[in-house]
Amino acid sequence: MTSAPIDPVKLDKLARVAIKVGLQLAEGRDLLMTAPMSAAPLVRRITEHAYKAGAGLVTTIYSDEEATLARYKYANDKSFDKGAARLYSGMAEAFKANTARLAISGDNPMMLAGRDPDKVSRANRANSAAYKPALQLITGFDINWNIVSYPNAARAKLMFPNDSEEIAVGKLADAIFKASRVDVDDPIAARKEHNANLKKRWSWLNGKNFASLKYSGPGTDLTIGSADGHRWKGGASEAKNGITCNPNIPTEEVFTTPHRLRVEGTVSSTKPLSHNGTLIEDMQARFEGGRLVQLKASKGRDIFNRVLDTDEGARHWAKWRWYPIPPRFRPRVCSSTTPSTTKMPPATSPWASAMPIASWAGRTSPRTRSSPRAATPPISISTG
Amino acid sequence: MTSAPIDPVKLDKLARVAIKVGLQLAEGRDLLMTAPMSAAPLVRRITEHAYKAGAGLVTTIYSDEEATLARYKYANDKSFDKGAARLYSGMAEAFKANTARLAISGDNPMMLAGRDPDKVSRANRANSAAYKPALQLITGFDINWNIVSYPNAARAKLMFPNDSEEIAVGKLADAIFKASRVDVDDPIAARKEHNANLKKRWSWLNGKNFASLKYSGPGTDLTIGSADGHRWKGGASEAKNGITCNPNIPTEEVFTTPHRLRVEGTVSSTKPLSHNGTLIEDMQARFEGGRLVQLKASKGRDIFNRVLDTDEGARHWAKWRWYPIPPRFRPRVCSSTTPSTTKMPPATSPWASAMPIASWAGRTSPRTRSSPRAATPPISISTG
Repeated sequence: MTSAPIDPVKLDKLARVAIKVGLQLAEGRDLLMTAPMSAAPLVRRITEHAYKAGAGLVTTIYSDEEATLARYKYANDKSFDKGAARLYSGMAEAFKANTARLAISGDNPMMLAGRDPDKVSRANRANSAAYKPALQLITGFDINWNIVSYPNAARAKLMFPNDSEEIAVGKLADAIFKASRVDVDDPIAARKEHNANLKKRWSWLNGKNFASLKYSGPGTDLTIGSADGHRWKGGASEAKNGITCNPNIPTEEVFTTPHRLRVEGTVSSTKPLSHNGTLIEDMQARFEGGRLVQLKASKGRDIFNRVLDTDEGARHWAKWRWYPIPPRFRPRVCSSTTPSTTKMPPATSPWASAMPIASWAGRTSPRTRSSPRAATPPISISTG
Repeated sequence: MTSAPIDPVKLDKLARVAIKVGLQLAEGRDLLMTAPMSAAPLVRRITEHAYKAGAGLVTTIYSDEEATLARYKYANDKSFDKGAARLYSGMAEAFKANTARLAISGDNPMMLAGRDPDKVSRANRANSAAYKPALQLITGFDINWNIVSYPNAARAKLMFPNDSEEIAVGKLADAIFKASRVDVDDPIAARKEHNANLKKRWSWLNGKNFASLKYSGPGTDLTIGSADGHRWKGGASEAKNGITCNPNIPTEEVFTTPHRLRVEGTVSSTKPLSHNGTLIEDMQARFEGGRLVQLKASKGRDIFNRVLDTDEGARHWAKWRWYPIPPRFRPRVCSSTTPSTTKMPPATSPWASAMPIASWAGRTSPRTRSSPRAATPPISISTG
């Protein structure tokens, strides 16, 4: 329905970059992909490039927004504590057999607006628990993995409210292509250059070994202590199977591990945050000793609070993921990072027809890699 | 793309019948559904009725014709010996946990026309092997299961070549609704009455205990010996979990177990046969001692022969499934069976985006239930 305004040449380039750089898919390797049904045009391009690269078997599991909504409209209460554990465990077995993982992110950020927050949070929790064995293999980099973005029509209309849906989708598509650096002649070379630039930055940060970072901006005055022995990373990552993948396309971030207890101050999001089909607006959070002590939001606060109740760790800064880092959240010590992008939220649930969008992706910091508990971030938030 | 000409009220009735009668889905039970993406309108109706009936979690795995074709166009040769074994085994685990199974049949019967028959048959074989653990739980009736049909546009054009695609799809939809008996006020009552009628017939046949059946028609002169102790069945079946399901909607058949060695003569199909995306036309087969000794076909003979090479048993009549039984194939002894319908081919592959359409369904006769080897029929054929 929204494929017309999306440039087919750039879409094909995005697919090629996802396979050649994002995954570095090796000959004979299987690929498991998840995507919303509306992203089928990109799925097909990626499938083609995967097979051209010598893939063994490419399997895509589509999610369907309407089916997810049917659950919220018609299912009885007990349904919301169920997750597709057995199907996910088949997925985990596939990863153990070195199947690569690709997720297309492109869901409606407003999908679950108006649904019962209790059901939403229980369904998210049940899904996270069911998905955990598979997710750990991803966030632990047992395999190479990649997330790419596709323009969702509802998201496009949120971002470009004054345009028709078709125009808005075209604009969002162009923004994704630009941020993903596939709007150039040689997107693979552009990605290498970008990775080299990111590496320059995180190498510099590693050299400095800052004890803390100070963030300031409208409604934000936050000091984050660095973990002892922290390391900065960004861009390409080597998975345990020896393949260097680019987990996120687009990505502008460099990231590290905060100190669990040394986070003090207030952070605000001046743009909407999207969490599994729920928008959270005008969010402001205050941290003391690394722990959230106050939360404000003009919309979505109830959902956010329930997410924070998932487990004790959820209120700790160290378990949060913020991406991208808009200019105003940029640490002062890092003066030359690239501008904020149209980064999408985490990947769809592989079984999203049966449940709301899951947060499988998540950045992993050096700390989370050595700490399995942190591998299932209770929240994954992106600025729209 | 083809939903406009499909009557939404009858489609909803079909979905309701699939859940209420086809599966008799019990409260709290999970449901695993497979469907081509083009059948999404029916998937959504079924999902709704499943949740209304108290389903736990409904999960749909969509297949995508274009992704399947991409494999045939671009994959390297080794890909065609691969099956999604680990994902299927997650599915088998779900069935062991009493998840009900529903398949929407509605693929393009010509999808793989012109593709390399060697690749098609190897991919089918690899898929069958991978799917076997899950399939055995279905054909062994460990769980309740059901197949319903959805009008595929390419099939509709094959059946109604002189109509526009839209008109053809509408006609095929109406034919499916009629054959499925959902074009009446109370389709659930109609299904009960139909089952009672089928039961009358198979009870009568059981009472007669015929030693053999003789079929005759254009190009057909065939005698099929009945297995010792054979029983006739049809319509509703009780699964081992105690639920009486209606595996096939529509269905007009009564079936039994042939004698392995006592099949003699020639059988012809005067309508096209569809096998996993390949059409076989003007097929004529001669049997001696229960075994195929000669095969003719004007189209698709190569694919058919490769199917027959799958294993030794493939050439035995006892491993064939014919459905529906058009009037001319009706056994003489059974004078009152209902007319041929627009029965679709077996269900799609759950992982069909990664492989061609699989034949998971298959009738089970009393013999196959006690004989696991026969539970994976190497061929499943339907008349178009």
